[in-house]
Amino acid sequence: MNFDEIHNRVGTHSVKWDMMEMLYGVSPEDGLSMWVADMDFQAAEPIQNALKAMLDHGIFGYYGDDASYRAAICWWMENRHGWTVDPASIFTTHGLVNGTGVCVDAFTQEGDGVVLMAPVYHAFARVITAAGRRVVECDLRNDNGRYEMDFDAWDQQMDGSEKMLILCSPHNPGGRVWTREELEGVLAFAKRHDLILVSDEIHHDLVFPGATHIPMANIDGAEERLVMMTSPSKTFNIAGTHCGQVIIPDTKLRAKFASRMAALGLSPNAFGLHATEAAYSPEGAKWADAVLDYIDGNRKLFDEGINAIPGLASMPMEATYLAWVDFSGTGMSMGEFTKRVEKDAKIAVNHGPTFGSGGDNFLRFNLATPRAHVEEAVKRMQAAFGDLQ
Amino acid sequence: MNFDEIHNRVGTHSVKWDMMEMLYGVSPEDGLSMWVADMDFQAAEPIQNALKAMLDHGIFGYYGDDASYRAAICWWMENRHGWTVDPASIFTTHGLVNGTGVCVDAFTQEGDGVVLMAPVYHAFARVITAAGRRVVECDLRNDNGRYEMDFDAWDQQMDGSEKMLILCSPHNPGGRVWTREELEGVLAFAKRHDLILVSDEIHHDLVFPGATHIPMANIDGAEERLVMMTSPSKTFNIAGTHCGQVIIPDTKLRAKFASRMAALGLSPNAFGLHATEAAYSPEGAKWADAVLDYIDGNRKLFDEGINAIPGLASMPMEATYLAWVDFSGTGMSMGEFTKRVEKDAKIAVNHGPTFGSGGDNFLRFNLATPRAHVEEAVKRMQAAFGDLQ
Repeated sequence: MNFDEIHNRVGTHSVKWDMMEMLYGVSPEDGLSMWVADMDFQAAEPIQNALKAMLDHGIFGYYGDDASYRAAICWWMENRHGWTVDPASIFTTHGLVNGTGVCVDAFTQEGDGVVLMAPVYHAFARVITAAGRRVVECDLRNDNGRYEMDFDAWDQQMDGSEKMLILCSPHNPGGRVWTREELEGVLAFAKRHDLILVSDEIHHDLVFPGATHIPMANIDGAEERLVMMTSPSKTFNIAGTHCGQVIIPDTKLRAKFASRMAALGLSPNAFGLHATEAAYSPEGAKWADAVLDYIDGNRKLFDEGINAIPGLASMPMEATYLAWVDFSGTGMSMGEFTKRVEKDAKIAVNHGPTFGSGGDNFLRFNLATPRAHVEEAVKRMQAAFGDLQ
Repeated sequence: MNFDEIHNRVGTHSVKWDMMEMLYGVSPEDGLSMWVADMDFQAAEPIQNALKAMLDHGIFGYYGDDASYRAAICWWMENRHGWTVDPASIFTTHGLVNGTGVCVDAFTQEGDGVVLMAPVYHAFARVITAAGRRVVECDLRNDNGRYEMDFDAWDQQMDGSEKMLILCSPHNPGGRVWTREELEGVLAFAKRHDLILVSDEIHHDLVFPGATHIPMANIDGAEERLVMMTSPSKTFNIAGTHCGQVIIPDTKLRAKFASRMAALGLSPNAFGLHATEAAYSPEGAKWADAVLDYIDGNRKLFDEGINAIPGLASMPMEATYLAWVDFSGTGMSMGEFTKRVEKDAKIAVNHGPTFGSGGDNFLRFNLATPRAHVEEAVKRMQAAFGDLQ
């Protein structure tokens, strides 16, 4: 668990490092990659061991008998989140973008509205639009650098054509851990407008001290309209395994989802299943605690350094490893501050507008990287915006 | 490349060995597993090396920059099959059951008919039915133990509601390698009835000396209605990676398929991509030649032993590692001969009727296993049906 160790990911088919130049014009030679949400850390030892056992066996045929895989998921949710999961309620999708796609396909029709609280993880809108559904953006209120829900305003927006709400909990990119009151508000909103409630909780393990994540499944009365989405991919840095869990307590919703899974011939890959089972273990838990602690250190360092630059404000993170930085205080155009980050500081980051309404004037920085990278990024940012000092 | 080596797959999450007892009542303790189509051989060295390199790096984030992956596929198709593939025409699905599902979803509507030449690989019908489409079975004619197409009869069956034809080429479970004349006949049939032609060529590398596989893409005039499906999973025994290629030459069909892929949020896993690229290499080609030669030996041994039992007939295999054995000459009921295979010989096999019309009185035996297993299977079969001698 030496998170300080720098691993060169260039030339390893890493989208983060091998496509940064093509996408952002930042060369991996002297650039820092802080965009797409994976970590520059090696995966936890139990995962490495499980994959090594697969390799030692050397036969990679069809996977069967997933009882221990399901049991590991149930153990993790019970022990880490106080959430009791019925093993029969778990579907395995090829990551949660696929999970979202199958939800949209199973529970909505062409032309239906799907509600997002914007700004939010960009793939939701991509999938909704590609499926011929409408993205209905409900804007989060930015109250002094903290996103708040605004149900009164959102109620006014609804016209009855909305069929689904996708909640991002904890919130990416805003870093909020929603409170029980907020989650109850979301459920009441979903009920008022008769929306299927999809709760993407992929960042649920990456919650810093001081905040407590509450699974939407533990909010009374959610069950009949609830789809939970989780994955070890963020916590354990195994996004490449493309393995996510869609967990559906209600048997009627479950049957609809199962029918689409069958029609689409979706069944999971062996590497993802072995890795997930290994991750959701006591040894995995120790690693998750350690990586969170390390990222917490990165977050403090980054926020301090960035907030020292006049006009820049890093939104306080209660969760995730994704810093959401507001450049509006600089008075600069999007083009100008982005140029300074990409061309001067040579840092590849996610552009705010891709996250939808409210994303203008923001850039998202990925802090799941060795501390030396974060220190260097802060230094470069202070230089690139040195004229503001 | 020691294919004789016996690897114990029990307890490795192998569906073939770990679920045989639950599904067929054959214990792995003293049973032989010859059902689901994966091999009991370790994967080729270049694949093991590629996966080992992934493990040595130890970071399993998002995969990017797939140019070398696409190039490897193009190289293989050109060099092994004389088929020139445009890299931009390749989609990667989570195996070809998923590929079939997305084809059905993209190119047909609810209620449409999808034509299969029965008996055929069971997952096609499963996906078609789950998607609310109708399976239209066109029966292959069994001419003295060889499947033949019967276009005159099939023309009579069509009522205009059919929109797609799924060809299995080479044929599973019949082991036929379709001739150029037959493939031209399939295309003409698809044209007469205006059907999208999906050609599943997953067994294209597993063709025994004497037969030559012709890709449907090389039949003149197919392009405008053609979807090719290939995968290294059968050839290289990497079904667990769940990585298949759907290759669509026509740009309009391609756009439709791309739209569904985007809506379903489907993108491939890193293990499958690395393994595929490694497989489709000169080293992979050597392994593929060697494994085919070994299976050819198994096939001869099996056929000789089985055909020596009065009333049993193993259909001559031109391709695949799946023997299709006709028990109708025994005059026994399906229940009786299946009992003898499962309870007396203790061999788990696929039941003929799951392959659709024409599957009654057949069982399918998987020969991709060490020769000692095949020898033992033959011995047990001769004993179980010893009263027929």
